[in-house]
Amino acid sequence: MYSYLFFILYLLKFVSADTNEIVFQTKYFDAPLDHFNFRVTDTFKLRYLINDTYWRPHDGAPIFFYAGNEGDIHMFANNTGFVWETAPEFQALIVFAEHRYYGESLPFGNLSFTDPKYSGYLSSQQALADFVSLIKYLKDSYKVPFNRNPVIAFGGSYGGMLAAWMRMKYPSVIQGALASSAPIWQFTGMVPCDAFNRVTSSAYKTESVECFDSIKKSWGYFDQLGSSDDGLKWLTDTFKLCSPLKDVKELKNWLNGIYVNLAMTNYPYPTEFLTTLPANPVKAVCKHLLNSNVKHEELLNNIFSATSFYFNGTGSEKCLDFDESTDFDLGTQGWEFQSCTEMVMPMCDSGTDMFEKSDWNIKEVSDECFKKFKVRPDPGLAELEYGGKDIHWATNIIFSNGLLDPWSSGGVLKNLSSSAVAVVIPESAHHLDLRFTNEADPESVHSARKFYKNTFVAWIKEHNEQRTH
Amino acid sequence: MYSYLFFILYLLKFVSADTNEIVFQTKYFDAPLDHFNFRVTDTFKLRYLINDTYWRPHDGAPIFFYAGNEGDIHMFANNTGFVWETAPEFQALIVFAEHRYYGESLPFGNLSFTDPKYSGYLSSQQALADFVSLIKYLKDSYKVPFNRNPVIAFGGSYGGMLAAWMRMKYPSVIQGALASSAPIWQFTGMVPCDAFNRVTSSAYKTESVECFDSIKKSWGYFDQLGSSDDGLKWLTDTFKLCSPLKDVKELKNWLNGIYVNLAMTNYPYPTEFLTTLPANPVKAVCKHLLNSNVKHEELLNNIFSATSFYFNGTGSEKCLDFDESTDFDLGTQGWEFQSCTEMVMPMCDSGTDMFEKSDWNIKEVSDECFKKFKVRPDPGLAELEYGGKDIHWATNIIFSNGLLDPWSSGGVLKNLSSSAVAVVIPESAHHLDLRFTNEADPESVHSARKFYKNTFVAWIKEHNEQRTH
Repeated sequence: MYSYLFFILYLLKFVSADTNEIVFQTKYFDAPLDHFNFRVTDTFKLRYLINDTYWRPHDGAPIFFYAGNEGDIHMFANNTGFVWETAPEFQALIVFAEHRYYGESLPFGNLSFTDPKYSGYLSSQQALADFVSLIKYLKDSYKVPFNRNPVIAFGGSYGGMLAAWMRMKYPSVIQGALASSAPIWQFTGMVPCDAFNRVTSSAYKTESVECFDSIKKSWGYFDQLGSSDDGLKWLTDTFKLCSPLKDVKELKNWLNGIYVNLAMTNYPYPTEFLTTLPANPVKAVCKHLLNSNVKHEELLNNIFSATSFYFNGTGSEKCLDFDESTDFDLGTQGWEFQSCTEMVMPMCDSGTDMFEKSDWNIKEVSDECFKKFKVRPDPGLAELEYGGKDIHWATNIIFSNGLLDPWSSGGVLKNLSSSAVAVVIPESAHHLDLRFTNEADPESVHSARKFYKNTFVAWIKEHNEQRTH
Repeated sequence: MYSYLFFILYLLKFVSADTNEIVFQTKYFDAPLDHFNFRVTDTFKLRYLINDTYWRPHDGAPIFFYAGNEGDIHMFANNTGFVWETAPEFQALIVFAEHRYYGESLPFGNLSFTDPKYSGYLSSQQALADFVSLIKYLKDSYKVPFNRNPVIAFGGSYGGMLAAWMRMKYPSVIQGALASSAPIWQFTGMVPCDAFNRVTSSAYKTESVECFDSIKKSWGYFDQLGSSDDGLKWLTDTFKLCSPLKDVKELKNWLNGIYVNLAMTNYPYPTEFLTTLPANPVKAVCKHLLNSNVKHEELLNNIFSATSFYFNGTGSEKCLDFDESTDFDLGTQGWEFQSCTEMVMPMCDSGTDMFEKSDWNIKEVSDECFKKFKVRPDPGLAELEYGGKDIHWATNIIFSNGLLDPWSSGGVLKNLSSSAVAVVIPESAHHLDLRFTNEADPESVHSARKFYKNTFVAWIKEHNEQRTH
């Protein structure tokens, strides 16, 4: 069984910074702390980034609204070039709204996760209500009628889930949504819990069967070495760990996370994240793992060679510190909390993929959650709130998924209706389509983006025809 | 300007008991006090009435779910005969769920309205979440897969608004909704604030222009008499008031409310409410007001004769007590609170109808609300949450309205889409169509009910074809 914490790292580590420059103003919106009851009238500062230089509000031009996900909003703004590149031709207002409890938008500052009385206001429903309230506020500020300028929501990963849900829950406020790599079905009973690892593994297997086998074999070798002090010392030295390894699980978890992250960020050009990642990083790993029939130590040495660029891409790091390598701008605590309440995404492994066999044990997860946050998960909540698999009623949503992306396991890969459609991009990893245009982009990404723009035109036309005034 | 309290009485007084017998079990559901955050894990007892004798759950038969409105759920069960009459042929489960903060479903008992820390959990969103949670709980209890048995929501008046909104917000949980006399557009900026009184007046004018004129003239006469002690005494005697009239406004407000209530309950057969109401009560009023060109005192005497059956239908009441005549099972406080938060329905009068000229003054309403509940209204909330007039995306909803019903002023009178349709019943008052069949029902009500049943068949068929498992 993966702990929820372990799982989180998968979701969070995908963001890589871009070198393209973006221009915006940083502003703050006084968001109601609790949108759904009248007990509290407190507000907090929700940060958003805005660029209105292209916008022609009085001509009915649209608002491009990025539904911020689990982290500092700058990361998402930097890594969603498609919005910046596309806004000018649509004369669109650009807004990137930060998700409550992430980045600077912490309702209770450092106390935000110390007790449910502070953390309890973190939920996707509250976040969606923040976003529609912000849209209302912006339209009022610009003195445009509320129902005139159409709003197109954008999001990648959890942000894509939010973009889709905004359209599903507030279709009068949001006229369409581009939900990229949004695993809206990664919930209990909707997809098998081992699907995620199956897709991850296939990215490696496609690269090289030997690579897949090397990784699969390595876990047992780690366990053997991990059972003795000498073995732990050997691993500490081989993997250049900053402090002596006490439990081999730590190292295995770190590697597990890396394999997933590299599959997610398996982009066709170099990107920046914790460190510089090369183009096609899965290939970069696998080139060190082309023979699985070697001695135990040699195989583990190869694993180190294969993965060391992940923490030491520039060659300047002296040693590997597990903590440091996960120290980035993402709100780990926030996502842990959400995974412990509504965003309960079961993960397991059947043992037939390149990962170790593991079960999903909700009881154990629940106990961990209670220990950490004094809350317990409600695995059925997302289905009740957002509709599960039977959402053929959804309209004006593009669900795009890259088949290289592990998260496509929980994504919508077939059209739901005539206007809630699936775009499958074989050569894409985690929301490559939302990134800035790059000459290394595959043709399938180019044509997907073209389809998106044509669809936006149709949504805007529909809105203009149907609105009442 | 009408105060919100005054307005409330309109909405609440429509319920008349029926003599038809209904059979059910009374049960309680542990509903989460707050569905939208994880701060509180408290629950409260939500009452519901259930009858499963007709239900064939394992054949995929539907659930008929009445979305309780602002009062004791028994009243709505007793006055929604259509559900009881129709369930057997659909082999349907019958559920009437009480709305939180009404009837017995008071989360904090007698304290519920004493402070926002108790009352704040009263909102339509929480109520909708109660209902979908109850549906989930019931399906689990009966051990049927969550997405198999379709759910059809029913509701009249505010309950009809909730039924429509359930379908709009939770279309995977609710496959269709019959929203009868549901004024979902009676909000700021959606319909003119004088529309309600215009429709009420037209019910009287249609009956007799003299009747309309008599009522219209009476207000000035009341004011004249109300300006002297002798006049007040004359009114006290003439209207057989239990205690001396101090302010003529009290009497005018009482009459104003009666005119509205009688228009709402202008049914073609006698009904029971505070007292026995005759068939076609507007006609019963107007037969006393067939000449408006009489002396002041004579006209007011006629007004008394016209309205006395309202408080003394049986002839056993000795005097008229304003308080007693509004003492019924409806949750006045609850609706006042909702009118002071999200259900802000502007009411005014242009002075061209049979009522006195009055303005809508949100500032004054807001101050009254703050004084009473320590909350202030948010007039834009309903539009943001439920979509306002631009809801062409809605599906599988029947909006039925009777043209005799004042509330049709805020209702949906034209089709929104191919499956969100309007049924207009010229001869119907406030949700006559939901009542038990009566031989006095007009043909238009019969044919509406037939249409509803055919539509339910279509919704059920659609659900069975589209659900994934």
